[in-house]
Amino acid sequence: MSPRRPPITTQASTAVFTQVLTQGPVSRVDLARRTGLSSAAITKAARPFLDAGYLEELEAGERTAPGAGRPASPLVVRADREFFVGVKITTEDLIGVVGDLRTQIRASAHHQLAAGDVEHVVGALAELVDELLARSPEYRERTHVMGVAVSGDVDRATGTVRYSPFLGWRDVPLAELLAEATGLKVVLENDVKALTVAEQWFGEGVGLSSFALVTVGTGIGCGLVIGGNLVAGAHGVAGELGHLAVAAEPACHCGGTGCVEAIASTDAIVARARLVTGSPALSMEQAVTGARGGDPLLRGVFDRAGHAIGLGLTAVANLVGPERIVVSGEGLAAYDLFEPQIRETFARQAFGAAADCALIIRPLPFEEWARGAASVAVQSLFSGHAH
Amino acid sequence: MSPRRPPITTQASTAVFTQVLTQGPVSRVDLARRTGLSSAAITKAARPFLDAGYLEELEAGERTAPGAGRPASPLVVRADREFFVGVKITTEDLIGVVGDLRTQIRASAHHQLAAGDVEHVVGALAELVDELLARSPEYRERTHVMGVAVSGDVDRATGTVRYSPFLGWRDVPLAELLAEATGLKVVLENDVKALTVAEQWFGEGVGLSSFALVTVGTGIGCGLVIGGNLVAGAHGVAGELGHLAVAAEPACHCGGTGCVEAIASTDAIVARARLVTGSPALSMEQAVTGARGGDPLLRGVFDRAGHAIGLGLTAVANLVGPERIVVSGEGLAAYDLFEPQIRETFARQAFGAAADCALIIRPLPFEEWARGAASVAVQSLFSGHAH
Repeated sequence: MSPRRPPITTQASTAVFTQVLTQGPVSRVDLARRTGLSSAAITKAARPFLDAGYLEELEAGERTAPGAGRPASPLVVRADREFFVGVKITTEDLIGVVGDLRTQIRASAHHQLAAGDVEHVVGALAELVDELLARSPEYRERTHVMGVAVSGDVDRATGTVRYSPFLGWRDVPLAELLAEATGLKVVLENDVKALTVAEQWFGEGVGLSSFALVTVGTGIGCGLVIGGNLVAGAHGVAGELGHLAVAAEPACHCGGTGCVEAIASTDAIVARARLVTGSPALSMEQAVTGARGGDPLLRGVFDRAGHAIGLGLTAVANLVGPERIVVSGEGLAAYDLFEPQIRETFARQAFGAAADCALIIRPLPFEEWARGAASVAVQSLFSGHAH
Repeated sequence: MSPRRPPITTQASTAVFTQVLTQGPVSRVDLARRTGLSSAAITKAARPFLDAGYLEELEAGERTAPGAGRPASPLVVRADREFFVGVKITTEDLIGVVGDLRTQIRASAHHQLAAGDVEHVVGALAELVDELLARSPEYRERTHVMGVAVSGDVDRATGTVRYSPFLGWRDVPLAELLAEATGLKVVLENDVKALTVAEQWFGEGVGLSSFALVTVGTGIGCGLVIGGNLVAGAHGVAGELGHLAVAAEPACHCGGTGCVEAIASTDAIVARARLVTGSPALSMEQAVTGARGGDPLLRGVFDRAGHAIGLGLTAVANLVGPERIVVSGEGLAAYDLFEPQIRETFARQAFGAAADCALIIRPLPFEEWARGAASVAVQSLFSGHAH
């Protein structure tokens, strides 16, 4: 098998490979219909991927019914042709995965961080990658690119963490540092955007021209896909659902007032739960247990958070009208406590047919963040943004 | 001169004609640079427009400096090659204009409506069109398409007013009725979207990939352009800035609570002004005069409205990050009373670099709505959405 990667340089090759990658086995006839390309153009575009082993043809007629005419020979991705590392960096740990071309997780590993400075994190991350790739000779041989996801303001084009409040980093050329430390090409992306890419390519967003992914946890973020593209913001800011003002209080760390994040982030919920119960040491787990047990004061705290999230979601639905909104994040481990109020508020405040926007509310295994990072690594097949 | 309209059927012809139409005289060299097309492709794309008299070449060298090399022969639109009628329908009157290819207003007329039923409005509108076209033989000869703008839920593709609360219309096939009554092709569009098209093609939005137009008046609306396209919403709803929840009260006619429109629409301001002054017959004019005179209670009403609008603008900036936001509408005739609070709220609540989004706050002559309607008629050169 040739080690070279297929050249994705034309619109036709991008269209064909993306269709097969994200939508499973597709016949050439369907590819022509979906892309608007001629059969000859499809064949020409697919050829380098077949030659390099990234695509293969299913057996002729394998998926067609008897008497259905000329066999279809659908094209399918050889998912194990290349592997990708994905790593999410948090303040406490690193979560790493090895994913295949379709970002199916093949291996995963956690690594507690002893310190949060850049040098330590880079060293720990290199060890984590080494450990993951050591699990199989084929990972070592067929992994060329790593995706790394960090919360905060990340410049994917230059591979720089411009500002990550939780990590306390400013202007860190992280992609370059990690490329040196690991020998892999590195794609750096904001964690919410990376997760949005994973949903767009391999999750709830497949085939949709517009959808939103909202994450609830330490922070509250949102990735927006409109017209098939992730919205980046002309000034580098977009998807800041956490900083929509939905109430007259409290003050938010951003300088604004009544932000969704100031009401519904994990810290905000804990602070409010301590206030209403008068228990200054109450933990999130205790708040969840108490609310599930029916404590009206604690239930009120989660209702208030659900209401704020619901108002944030209606802002998205009323302004940009996505087909679907996925609400997820580690804060939704207790989603049973939020969900009724989120849905009630959304139903009441969504304007007319905006209420038809499907809400999918579900918890988020922490590994998913790393899978998001792996999916932006897969995107490096298409774009030049790897260092 | 041939009466036929140029065939805009290819991406290249769309790109070339749009560039010249919206960006003024452009040399073939610049066209090639901006569109990524070859010189040969530019020449081929421009030929039918030159033949049909929609484009012309400026004199060779006319706009180049001495010694600047080969003359540039820029292409320019012949604005008077075709005229377009634009009409805005309100509950009280019709405002009509004749615009040229660049939507410069050549003639305008008002018409009071004696009744609001569909039959009467269609008849009155046909009279208005006749009056406008009678003003010049060239209008009569070179006008083929009319754009019509209505507030509410409008399906441009089918030319139907699905629901217009202010007019009390449901499922009215208005484009078809007006085409029969006037003999013109008719493009029907929501009024805010039409105005957004006018800004995108000939106003503050020229050359921007993202911007927002917010209108303040009887209703509060928003047209959003992202990635060069007007956001339509997967469920037909988008840009409903008036129904973002930004406060805990009051109830809104939409069924939601604390909507921007329930605080900052003209009706809401008048109602609040009457409440705080205890004058049940106070008019908007009196409220404006009192606030300008320094009445603290009335100033507070406009501050509160400005704050709600400011929060709505930050929602747009924080979520989608447009390059620029234009705030306009007949409600901003007294924009001196709103503007300070709008800007203060925006500066405080915009997240990080989202505050770099330029806010342009200005009143809106009512004729502009009709100009917006004319601009969607111009778009019929490109799309098939005329009846």
